[in-house]
Amino acid sequence: MEYKKISSGFILKLIKGENIAEKITEFCEKEKVFFGLVKGIGALEKAEIAHFSLTEKKYINKVFEEDLEVLSFIGNIALKEEKPFMHVHITLGKNDFSVFGGHFVSGIVGATMEIFIQKFEEKTERKKDKETELFLLDLEK
Amino acid sequence: MEYKKISSGFILKLIKGENIAEKITEFCEKEKVFFGLVKGIGALEKAEIAHFSLTEKKYINKVFEEDLEVLSFIGNIALKEEKPFMHVHITLGKNDFSVFGGHFVSGIVGATMEIFIQKFEEKTERKKDKETELFLLDLEK
Amino acid sequence: MEYKKISSGFILKLIKGENIAEKITEFCEKEKVFFGLVKGIGALEKAEIAHFSLTEKKYINKVFEEDLEVLSFIGNIALKEEKPFMHVHITLGKNDFSVFGGHFVSGIVGATMEIFIQKFEEKTERKKDKETELFLLDLEK
Repeated sequence: MEYKKISSGFILKLIKGENIAEKITEFCEKEKVFFGLVKGIGALEKAEIAHFSLTEKKYINKVFEEDLEVLSFIGNIALKEEKPFMHVHITLGKNDFSVFGGHFVSGIVGATMEIFIQKFEEKTERKKDKETELFLLDLEK
Repeated sequence: MEYKKISSGFILKLIKGENIAEKITEFCEKEKVFFGLVKGIGALEKAEIAHFSLTEKKYINKVFEEDLEVLSFIGNIALKEEKPFMHVHITLGKNDFSVFGGHFVSGIVGATMEIFIQKFEEKTERKKDKETELFLLDLEK
Repeated sequence: MEYKKISSGFILKLIKGENIAEKITEFCEKEKVFFGLVKGIGALEKAEIAHFSLTEKKYINKVFEEDLEVLSFIGNIALKEEKPFMHVHITLGKNDFSVFGGHFVSGIVGATMEIFIQKFEEKTERKKDKETELFLLDLEK
């Protein structure tokens, strides 16, 4: 992964074989990004995504392994149990142009990933919500 | 809904059962957001979306009611007949990871919605366009 | 196409029949946007999209011609062989609300396209990568 500081954020380039979630978490710790926005496009060779069932309060996960275009990779970074945590949803395109997607769990880069991270100076935490059992943004602090 | 002012905008968190369009419109009136960008992810339990037929100059609408991941929620806010008006397109994911989407009409939040609104100080209006009969952005004023 | 300068970027409105890639390239040359982000929604009446096969190191292209909602249009602008080059991925919705998408090649606007371009002052180039044979971002310069 290479990256470059620009006004209000960073541009990241990931290359074939890199694990996106790991690389971005390392980057956030190094550059002290504790709150921000994530947005990108690119390609993956492997992706694990999930769908949350609100009734059952659990995620269903699935792994896809093929050349996938990342049509959108959108989300945010906030602190969860004092560490930078990335929450992203992803839309993926297959070679027949069909599309699927969900909550992003992990992904291995294909040709490349081009990601912009906008850094905010305010700290924002996620806190476990009783109703959904998810770590939701806590904006009142 | 909770929200927090940050540099160049606001982060909003909506919770289960809230009506997104209503909450954001109220927020824009309160915070005087008359022109801006909207971007978010989250989950809905109900969504109404639409597709515009340019030939027939009308929208076809459809309501979906199930646990839906919001993979992308992208658009803008501008003035329409002197009130803040949100124009957003949405991509939604089902529990089999299939995806559908369209012009966003309304939605009831599922687990949560996490939305970033970037506010611009310039006012921008929508004006009725004769050819499409839609209220398009008027950038020449 | 109309556009308006705003803090940190530009809002563009394209209208029926305009060729997006041509208009944005012209705009970038005129406004000296050599590095930036692109984000938008709207509608197309014709779209050419592509999928990259990493094994075969080539794109497969396909043209769609019908009323299409642009659910997301996300990417960046950087210099390629000294000219502004737009790299965008697109998600498109049909009138049955099904979705498809891929790497954006070209598109003719339907009702309208509303695009925000964030301009960065730093120059960034794309350089041919030996492994993928694609022009990837070069962030180390």
